[in-house]
Amino acid sequence: MKDELVRNAAGRLVPTIVNGKPQVAFAGVGKYRPKGRKAAPPISSCVDYPADGNKLVKDLRTAFEMAGLKDGMTISTHHHLRNGDFVANMVFDTAAEMGIKDLMWFPSASFPCHAHNIKHLESGVIHHIEGSMNGPLGVRGMGVLRSHGGRYQAVQDGEVHIDIAVIAAPAADPFGNANGLVGPSACGLLGFALADSQYADKVIIVTDNLVPFPCIPWQIHGNYVDYVVVVDRIGDAAKIVSGTTEITRSPDRLLIAELAARFVREAGIMRDGFSFQGGAGGTALAFAIFLKDMMKEAGVKARFVRAGSTRYTVEMLEEGLTDYILDGQTFDLEGVRSMRENPNHVWTSPFTSYNYHGKGNFASMVDVVVLGATEVDVNFNANVVTHSDGLLLHGIGGWQNCLFAKCTILPIPSFRDRIPVIVDEVTTLCGPGELIDVVVTERGIAINPRRKDLIDALKDSRLPIRPIEDIKSEVERICGGKPAKPEFEDRIVAAIKWVDGTVIDCVRQIAE
Amino acid sequence: MKDELVRNAAGRLVPTIVNGKPQVAFAGVGKYRPKGRKAAPPISSCVDYPADGNKLVKDLRTAFEMAGLKDGMTISTHHHLRNGDFVANMVFDTAAEMGIKDLMWFPSASFPCHAHNIKHLESGVIHHIEGSMNGPLGVRGMGVLRSHGGRYQAVQDGEVHIDIAVIAAPAADPFGNANGLVGPSACGLLGFALADSQYADKVIIVTDNLVPFPCIPWQIHGNYVDYVVVVDRIGDAAKIVSGTTEITRSPDRLLIAELAARFVREAGIMRDGFSFQGGAGGTALAFAIFLKDMMKEAGVKARFVRAGSTRYTVEMLEEGLTDYILDGQTFDLEGVRSMRENPNHVWTSPFTSYNYHGKGNFASMVDVVVLGATEVDVNFNANVVTHSDGLLLHGIGGWQNCLFAKCTILPIPSFRDRIPVIVDEVTTLCGPGELIDVVVTERGIAINPRRKDLIDALKDSRLPIRPIEDIKSEVERICGGKPAKPEFEDRIVAAIKWVDGTVIDCVRQIAE
Repeated sequence: MKDELVRNAAGRLVPTIVNGKPQVAFAGVGKYRPKGRKAAPPISSCVDYPADGNKLVKDLRTAFEMAGLKDGMTISTHHHLRNGDFVANMVFDTAAEMGIKDLMWFPSASFPCHAHNIKHLESGVIHHIEGSMNGPLGVRGMGVLRSHGGRYQAVQDGEVHIDIAVIAAPAADPFGNANGLVGPSACGLLGFALADSQYADKVIIVTDNLVPFPCIPWQIHGNYVDYVVVVDRIGDAAKIVSGTTEITRSPDRLLIAELAARFVREAGIMRDGFSFQGGAGGTALAFAIFLKDMMKEAGVKARFVRAGSTRYTVEMLEEGLTDYILDGQTFDLEGVRSMRENPNHVWTSPFTSYNYHGKGNFASMVDVVVLGATEVDVNFNANVVTHSDGLLLHGIGGWQNCLFAKCTILPIPSFRDRIPVIVDEVTTLCGPGELIDVVVTERGIAINPRRKDLIDALKDSRLPIRPIEDIKSEVERICGGKPAKPEFEDRIVAAIKWVDGTVIDCVRQIAE
Repeated sequence: MKDELVRNAAGRLVPTIVNGKPQVAFAGVGKYRPKGRKAAPPISSCVDYPADGNKLVKDLRTAFEMAGLKDGMTISTHHHLRNGDFVANMVFDTAAEMGIKDLMWFPSASFPCHAHNIKHLESGVIHHIEGSMNGPLGVRGMGVLRSHGGRYQAVQDGEVHIDIAVIAAPAADPFGNANGLVGPSACGLLGFALADSQYADKVIIVTDNLVPFPCIPWQIHGNYVDYVVVVDRIGDAAKIVSGTTEITRSPDRLLIAELAARFVREAGIMRDGFSFQGGAGGTALAFAIFLKDMMKEAGVKARFVRAGSTRYTVEMLEEGLTDYILDGQTFDLEGVRSMRENPNHVWTSPFTSYNYHGKGNFASMVDVVVLGATEVDVNFNANVVTHSDGLLLHGIGGWQNCLFAKCTILPIPSFRDRIPVIVDEVTTLCGPGELIDVVVTERGIAINPRRKDLIDALKDSRLPIRPIEDIKSEVERICGGKPAKPEFEDRIVAAIKWVDGTVIDCVRQIAE
C-alpha cells in the first residue's frame, strides 16, 4: 500500500488517506477549525425496549446476535479495568465462535492481558486495532494512534463510527445504568466508555454485579443501553494496579522529581488555589510527593488535582491539601475507594477533560502538568510513542491533551540505556514544542525560550537552569555521540493524530 | 390560517402542518416508529474559547450579541425556579432593548411570574411560545403543547432547533459548570435544561452565585456552555413552592386520596421493593401520606419514589421507607436540601425519565402513578389541558409520560363547580384510555375493563368498585345533566403532541 503523502505544518510527511479514509494534515496548534456537525446516532424508540426496563439477555453471543453483529463492524471496549480486564477477550472469543471476520477493535486502550487477542488478529476475526496500545499487540492495516481526548473527538465528530460498544461494568442494573464504583471488580469510573455509550449504534453492558434498578450513581445511563449481559467475572480488580503506580527508587529520577517540584514552587505556580496534574509513572508520583511536602511547609492548598488517582492523590484530598480530585481513571484501589466515598473525588470523562472539539475543556485550565516522554528535541518537540530506535512502543493516552496546561513540564532522564533522550529532532512528533515549557533532567533544567515569563521568574533561582543544547551536548559526550538514526521502509505502520483529528506524524516500518 | 386536517388513530381531526412544519398524526400508542438520526449540533473548537476557562461576559446583552441573536430565533429557558424565576423576563427585556423581533420562546414551562412577558408578546419581540403554560400567558401563532419528555424528544429529534439556550443557574463557575443545589436561589436541579445545553447552538449560563472552578456537582457541563453572565438575582427561591404543594383539606379529596391508597394496597402493588410516583397536587400529596402510613403499618419499603419532591417524599427517604428518590424537580425547599445532602436523592432529567425516543425510560418501570385530570371519558381517555368549557388552561408537564407506569390511577372529583368530570368523550384528548387503568372518585372506583388482572385482584374487595358509566350517570343526575358542549371556531389555538412527537389532538378557538 503506497499512500499519497503531504508535508504538514510541522514539516512531517504524513498520509492523506488512512485505511481508506481521507485525512487532514496537521495545520499548527489551534489552526484547524472543524466544519460540520457532530455525529448523529439513530433515533431509538421505547417501543423496541422492554417496558419493565429489563434488558437482560442470556449471554454475549445472544446480545451480539440481537445487535446484528456482522463482518467488518467496529466494536469498542474501555480500559478502566486496565491489565485486569477480561471482557475485551470475551468479545473476540465470542465473535470467533460466531464466525465473524474483519472487525475493527476500537479500545480506549489495550494492555498485556489482551495478548489473548493476538490469535484473533492472526485468524482475521480482528482486522485491525485503533487505540492506545500498552502492550504486545501488533499492528495490522495502518494503526491510528489517538489521545484519550482525540478518541472522544473522533467519535463525536463521526470520524470513527462504533457499531457496537461493549462496556464492562462493575455494577449495573437490568436497565443498563452502570458504574465502576462497587462490586468485586470495582475500577472507579467508566468515563472512557462515555462517548461509546452516547454515539454507538448498539450498546451492550457486561457485568458481574447485577443490582436492582436503579444502579446509583449511573455513570453510564441505561437510556443509551440496548442489552445487559451477566457473566461470572469481568476482571481482576487487583490488576488495575499496574507497575507504573510505584514511586521510583532511582536516585536520578528522585532528583529529577525533586527539581521539578522545586521549579513549580520557585516559578510561583504553587500558590493557594492552584491546580496540577501528575500521572501514575514513578517519577510523576515522586514529583507529587515532593510537591505535597512543599505545599504543607508553605501552607498552600490546591483547588484541584487532575488525576489518574492513586493513594497519594487520595491522601492529599483527605489531608485537606486539595479541594477536589478531578479524576479520569483510578490507578489503584485506594482511588476506587475514595471515589466511591468522597463526593469531592469527582469522576470526569474525556468529554469534560480533553475533547478539543468541545466548548473548551479542563486540560488548559490546569496550572502545571508533569508528563513523561521518550524523546525531546532542541525545539522542545516531544515523542511519546516510539524511542530513537523507531519501534512503536507506547500509546498516547491523555498525554497530548495535557500539553495544554498553563505550564507543561517533562521530567525525564537525559539518557536511557546510554542513548540520549534529548535529540536534534524527535523520531516521531507527538507534541509540538510550543506547548512544552520545561524539560527537567538530572543534569539540569531547560526552559523553552518562548516562555520568557518563566525565564524571568526563575532568573535569580539557584536551580540548575541551562540551555537545552548544553544539556544535549553534555549527554552526547557521556553516551559517545548522537543516537543512531534508524532506517525506515516506506510502509507506514501507524498514523499519529493530533487532538483536533489532523495527522501530526506517522510511524514507518523499521528496515530489517 | 386554515390548515389541512387529517383524522388520526384516535379519531381526532388534527392539522398536518403546524407553524409551517409538517406533522405526523397520532398513529396509536407505540405504533409510530421514528426514522432517521438525532439532531447534530455544530462541532465546536477549543480555539474559540478562552484557554483559562473564563467564559464570563459583562451582561446578558453582550452574551446575546456574541451569540449572534437575530430576529426569528428560538430561545429556551427552564422552569426549575418555577414561579420565582427572574431570568426568562430578563431574556425578553434584553431582546426588546436590542430591538429584536419575532423570537420563539421555548420554555420547559411558564408561570404567572412570566406575565411580565405579555408586553413582549404584544409588541412582537416574542412571536409565539411553545411550552407548558401554567399561567396567564396567551397563545399567538399556533401553540404546541408537549409533555416534559416530548420536549426532550422534540429537541433530540431535531423537531425544535434551539438557537440560544439561557439557563438560570443557582451555582456556576466561570467555565459554565452549573448546578441548582447551592446558593441563594437554590432550586434543586437543572434537568429540564439538559436537552437545551446539549443541543442548542449557543448556551448562556446566568447565575447569581459564581463559584471558583470547579462547580461540583456539574449538573450542566461547562463543556456545552458558551458564555457565563452574573446578575444580582436569578430568582426568588421562596416562590419555588407553589400553591400546588399543599395537602388538600377538602373532605371529598381526602376520601379520594385514601381510596386510591387503599386500592394500591389491596391490588398488591404496595409490596417490598415497589415504586410509585405522586405529583405535587393536593390530592396526590394526600395519597402519598395515606400510602406512607399503610407502608409503615405493613412494614413495606419502596425501592424508589419518582418525584417532584416535597417535604413528604423527603420524610419517606429519611425514615427509610424508600431506598431512593428519583427526582425530576424539587417542589419545595426541603426537596432542595435533601437533594443537596443525600446521595440517595437522585437528580434525573427528561432524558432518563421520560424521553420516548431513548432506549427505554424510567416512566414505564414505575409500579403505580397517581395523576390529575380535568376530564375523563367512559373509555378512560383523559384530558389535562382544557376543561369541558374548551378553554386552554394547563400545560401537560410530565403527565403523558407518566401514563406508561404499570398502573395509572386518576384520583379525581366526580364533578367540579357542578360540572361533571366524567364525560362521554373528552373535549381534548391528552391521554389514550388504554394507558389509564383506574379512576378514583369520591363516589366510587372505576377499573378500566382492559385491566382484567386488576379487576380479578380486587374482586373480593370492599372498596366501592363500580363501572365508570354508573358513576357518570349518578354525577349527571346530581349536576342536572351532561356538561354543555362548547362551540368552537375552525381556528386551531394549539396542537397537542403525543410523547412520540405525533399530533394527538388540537384545541380550537371557542366561539364568542
